[in-house]
Amino acid sequence: VNGRGVVLAADLGATNLRLALADDAGQIVARRRASTAGIRDPHVVVRMIREAAPELLAEAGLGRSSLRAAAVGSPGVTDVDRGVVIATSYLLGWRDVPLREYLEEELGVPAAVDNDVNLAALGEARAGAGRAVDDFVFLAIGTGVGAGIVLNRRLHRGSAWTAGEIGYLLVPGTSESPIPRGEPGALESMLGGEGIRRRWKQQWNAERTRLPDNATAAGILDAAHAGDPLASEILHTAARVLSCAIYDMALILNCPLFVLGGSVGLHPALGESVSALLAQRDARVQPRIERSPLGDDAQLTGAIYLALDRAAQG
Amino acid sequence: VNGRGVVLAADLGATNLRLALADDAGQIVARRRASTAGIRDPHVVVRMIREAAPELLAEAGLGRSSLRAAAVGSPGVTDVDRGVVIATSYLLGWRDVPLREYLEEELGVPAAVDNDVNLAALGEARAGAGRAVDDFVFLAIGTGVGAGIVLNRRLHRGSAWTAGEIGYLLVPGTSESPIPRGEPGALESMLGGEGIRRRWKQQWNAERTRLPDNATAAGILDAAHAGDPLASEILHTAARVLSCAIYDMALILNCPLFVLGGSVGLHPALGESVSALLAQRDARVQPRIERSPLGDDAQLTGAIYLALDRAAQG
Repeated sequence: VNGRGVVLAADLGATNLRLALADDAGQIVARRRASTAGIRDPHVVVRMIREAAPELLAEAGLGRSSLRAAAVGSPGVTDVDRGVVIATSYLLGWRDVPLREYLEEELGVPAAVDNDVNLAALGEARAGAGRAVDDFVFLAIGTGVGAGIVLNRRLHRGSAWTAGEIGYLLVPGTSESPIPRGEPGALESMLGGEGIRRRWKQQWNAERTRLPDNATAAGILDAAHAGDPLASEILHTAARVLSCAIYDMALILNCPLFVLGGSVGLHPALGESVSALLAQRDARVQPRIERSPLGDDAQLTGAIYLALDRAAQG
Repeated sequence: VNGRGVVLAADLGATNLRLALADDAGQIVARRRASTAGIRDPHVVVRMIREAAPELLAEAGLGRSSLRAAAVGSPGVTDVDRGVVIATSYLLGWRDVPLREYLEEELGVPAAVDNDVNLAALGEARAGAGRAVDDFVFLAIGTGVGAGIVLNRRLHRGSAWTAGEIGYLLVPGTSESPIPRGEPGALESMLGGEGIRRRWKQQWNAERTRLPDNATAAGILDAAHAGDPLASEILHTAARVLSCAIYDMALILNCPLFVLGGSVGLHPALGESVSALLAQRDARVQPRIERSPLGDDAQLTGAIYLALDRAAQG
């Protein structure tokens, strides 16, 4: 750590809060993880961040005055200009939370907030798979499904901050019925970890698999990779709808690179199947498919760069 | 026309060349149309434009020196930076034509070129339905299908100049099979004028319609509006795939407005059906659907503004 100070980055999920302190080159100098299970009050979350800050600074051998800025990735629709989390899923249940203001009050430094998938895309743009391209899409495929879209080296966030909400995408193979509020979207229900587990339960049959009916998404993908018949079928369905979604986004955006992230997206079985399906489809549209080199750290890395940008603004 | 001169704009199609002279407010002061049927040589097309220029200027009571710049919309993939038409459909059959250079040589003024659908979107952005919004999509639904995408008030053209090639989009109801080269795309074959005519011929049955089996797309849409059973079915299929395509683009881009243009897109029957289908689908995604107020002049209007921008650069 040189004399130019550090920034604090946080990746807030429904069950975990991940924190890192990084220097002005984006290198992490201290990190920790805390459980947010059962915590819904944004003030409590911000207090957890405030209490962790001096401990992380001490761990890095720094005083309080070394902290220059902070940034938090939130799992929801986020108004970046006003610093407000407009809405998260039911797990946090936030509505119109002025998170940036809370952070600045508690930490006493400039702060910034953005949607976590957008931050993952920012992380890839600055320090990951997207460094050499102007346009790419980061696909966060975990429990749910979302996309962070970088065009001309800038995040495209959309007119109401919801660009990339691809969990509801309609492609061949998805349901076409309107989705009730709170239910997973058409694409998400075939591709997200929660959707994969539900479909597994529905289709489970002891004659077609050695896995139990309550297998995890990771377990199902591992078994598919190893040739388990039922798991292979579930994987193939997920890969098929994902390959259509990527094909459509590549046509619309003319985007040469799709980066797979999230617990399901990072699994090698999914990326391989999707690349094979796209190769069969159409010579016109052949985007590269890469697994995120930042892996679990994509969101946190983006938060670091957002905090560094905020520090540079002063 | 004031003393600041005029620009020449051209909209080049496979069968027609439309030309206009416009003042610095974008107002058309003279216009004409010529047939390009059977003409494939770009030099011949440029010579037609060169020969029309002094006649249009004379018609407006202006001398040659009043012409400040020119712009042409081409029906193909266009490299705007280099001024090169990379590829058009088989009707023109152009490959890597340096159209801007040809125009500048023949006309002796600065010139610019772009894809015609992008120019239609530019026209709507400056003088049509898109004036009041930052983000919108122009849908050109004529013989073929394409989109011009405006994000943050700028055209998004993509990494290889093909953004918005939505004729190949995969949505519920389209074929999922790979499309051979030269064949209409999956969406286009159900929604474009040529696709509608083909499907009409395939499904034609004298008991279900009063129209002949060689009806035009416009005739089929008129008949659908008037309640003809077979025509209504063809319209409903087109509206259904278009509503899914708009829904998907609205999710990906978070874009509040879709402007329908082109001979099929401008037909009231299509817009009404699509709006009704979207209203049923999902409260989350309710973009406005508007018919292009510029109508047939959308492309030409965009070419005027492109030429005015070029004139301003000098």
